[in-house]
Amino acid sequence: SIDAARLLERIRTLGAIGRDESGRLTRLAASDTEKVGRDQFVSWLDEAGLEVAVDRIGNILGIWRPDGVGDRQPLMLGSHIDTVIDAGIYDGCYGVLAALEVIQTLKAQGFASSRPVVVVAFTNEEGVRYAPDMMGSLVYAGGLDLDAALATLGTDGSVLGDELRRIGYAGAQEPGFFKPHAYIELHIEQGPVLEREGIPVGAVQNLQGISWQMVTIEGDANHAGTTPISMRRDAGHAAARVITFLRDRAKGSNTPTVATVGCIDFEPNAINVIPSRARFTVDLRDPDEDRLKEEEAALAAFLDHLAAEEQVGISVERLARFEPVTFDRRIVELVEKAARERGLACRRMTSGAGHDAQMIARIAPSAMIFVPSIGGISHNPKEHTTDEDLVAGANVLLDVVRELARK
Amino acid sequence: SIDAARLLERIRTLGAIGRDESGRLTRLAASDTEKVGRDQFVSWLDEAGLEVAVDRIGNILGIWRPDGVGDRQPLMLGSHIDTVIDAGIYDGCYGVLAALEVIQTLKAQGFASSRPVVVVAFTNEEGVRYAPDMMGSLVYAGGLDLDAALATLGTDGSVLGDELRRIGYAGAQEPGFFKPHAYIELHIEQGPVLEREGIPVGAVQNLQGISWQMVTIEGDANHAGTTPISMRRDAGHAAARVITFLRDRAKGSNTPTVATVGCIDFEPNAINVIPSRARFTVDLRDPDEDRLKEEEAALAAFLDHLAAEEQVGISVERLARFEPVTFDRRIVELVEKAARERGLACRRMTSGAGHDAQMIARIAPSAMIFVPSIGGISHNPKEHTTDEDLVAGANVLLDVVRELARK
Ligand SMILES: NC(=O)NCCC(=O)O
Ligand SMILES: NC(=O)NCCC(=O)O
Repeated sequence: SIDAARLLERIRTLGAIGRDESGRLTRLAASDTEKVGRDQFVSWLDEAGLEVAVDRIGNILGIWRPDGVGDRQPLMLGSHIDTVIDAGIYDGCYGVLAALEVIQTLKAQGFASSRPVVVVAFTNEEGVRYAPDMMGSLVYAGGLDLDAALATLGTDGSVLGDELRRIGYAGAQEPGFFKPHAYIELHIEQGPVLEREGIPVGAVQNLQGISWQMVTIEGDANHAGTTPISMRRDAGHAAARVITFLRDRAKGSNTPTVATVGCIDFEPNAINVIPSRARFTVDLRDPDEDRLKEEEAALAAFLDHLAAEEQVGISVERLARFEPVTFDRRIVELVEKAARERGLACRRMTSGAGHDAQMIARIAPSAMIFVPSIGGISHNPKEHTTDEDLVAGANVLLDVVRELARK
Repeated sequence: SIDAARLLERIRTLGAIGRDESGRLTRLAASDTEKVGRDQFVSWLDEAGLEVAVDRIGNILGIWRPDGVGDRQPLMLGSHIDTVIDAGIYDGCYGVLAALEVIQTLKAQGFASSRPVVVVAFTNEEGVRYAPDMMGSLVYAGGLDLDAALATLGTDGSVLGDELRRIGYAGAQEPGFFKPHAYIELHIEQGPVLEREGIPVGAVQNLQGISWQMVTIEGDANHAGTTPISMRRDAGHAAARVITFLRDRAKGSNTPTVATVGCIDFEPNAINVIPSRARFTVDLRDPDEDRLKEEEAALAAFLDHLAAEEQVGISVERLARFEPVTFDRRIVELVEKAARERGLACRRMTSGAGHDAQMIARIAPSAMIFVPSIGGISHNPKEHTTDEDLVAGANVLLDVVRELARK
């Protein structure tokens, strides 16, 4: 088994990096605070005696090359260490640090691995500062052009490539240089299923599709006191109608579709001026590609209808679009077997969140392991998983790696 | 008659102050750009040979004391020179500069005034940076404590009193030091009525009540992909429901009630995080006080219902509350008479916007004169009034002042 104390200690140490004066944790991709987190991770890789490689999109790889593996394809384990705004400490970090812990354990035990084992921390998984999310793994899998990714403009006006150079993580390797034989990602569920059912391990068999759009509505600024309701072209009101449309539609259906408007701003944003412009994001998800397409089409049709009815201009920019993914059946079964052998209840499940595994599945057999999130809370400082579950998940990962890397 | 060229030239000169690189005009109360506008106005007061006084809330008075007026109460004319964000050039400035023009004309003509005549530019009429609006005139009329006003926190975190000191307009006089005998304010209509009816002069007989509130909704941040719709406490969605409620209610009634949500922000404002907090402003207006109270009560009841239904916390802060005002009948009749004598069509009307006259009406007989706004557009760079209408309005003001100040 892994060294539970070391794993938990590292999770807490990394979770303390990037807190502001009021204690809020924020390590946005390629920011100053994320640099400190990256430096800490690299120092642990050094401590574990792993070979460190950074690629041009800033993905950090810690490579263990046991004797005699030659140029065999590695087993890759990992996740990300960037966070959302005002985040919890587990999302991403748990998977990266558990992967490091598994490798360090196998290495210390003198495990006879048939291939290299790599821990990877992918750049910009969250997609909060730069869209799309899962960017580092997407570039690694060849699904997004490196130069286009490096040129991405952030929500704060920064350019990802410049920021990676600035923080010293624009590496030399070509993304994808070390093509994995298989990829496994351990992660907190970030949803309510496992906790509700009292099951400590999830064998993730698929992952829903993700559609991110930025909608801009253009109306007319005018005086809030003098402009009769009938003469208004109110971009803010039109935006509110989209938000309630999405909610009513998701609520009214029997499908698992979810729709979220997380960001919004009005212009000129003055109390007595009718908004001339509203911009907001739409995050639509569904495990079924046809249904996700239907939801996108329904939104587009509603926007057309709204533009005519409210006499506003509407434009839509696509920020991310990922199809649902089905994971590798063999690895999913290995996860179930490992859990069973450790006496842990396990269920197959769908991931509601996007993950780097979704991208790497394009180039290698992949799967994920979930552990429970208390109250289903994530992307929130209250995000929590018990130490027991964290350790159990890491041990299941250890066993699956042993199985896959066995000589 | 007034010097039309000088008036129009000054309107254009002041309208050029406070433009950013992209040409947008913004002179928020007590800001750096407004300081430049104030300095320009004061230099015109000097040029006209008026006595300049600045009071502790930053109101600027240009005083003409004809011989023999002794300590009689002045006739006061004015408006404001602060603007909204991305403003037009007429709102406020027209009334101030026309008042100056009227005084300069009377002075040059050697008009035998029975009392001092004062042009005033009130501080922070727009209320965009500091709430409430009409703050300078409200303090002048004794309706708001000076120290409370100076301590007002701005939308940008600044404090009004500090900003007035910084820009050199924290004057020495006590607000209200020069109590007006009567107050007249000339202003663009900012609404569609006069233009639609082809009438150049409005004799404003009343002004609607204004209720400004800041609503804060507290939900739970959570993951946009993993959180089932039924488990969400989405502050952003609840805010959208308030916006559509207000619109549907205003639209469904036969009353002139208007409701506007001009400002909004979400926290954490991230694409894949359900908003934990939404804050937005509500601007409610009605010419009838009972109906305005009904609208406020309907909103409060809806918020209670929403808090229960969406399981969110809701708190409301009052930013401004002004009752409807009825102007002085005698001055309204003088406006009609002056228009008639100049061969200008005139109609009585209600002001949809709030104005300094609404505050000064508490301490002196007051009224307003409106000129048409093309397309009813205001609080927008497209705000426009023809030169002919601007000059006609200023001449009507001249005649009304002559009538009121006659020996
Ligand atoms: N796991 C996770 O939170 N990923 C961020 C991308 C997403 O929004 O699903
Ligand atoms: N006239 C004018 O625009 N005043 C600002 C206060 C208001 O919102 O009515």
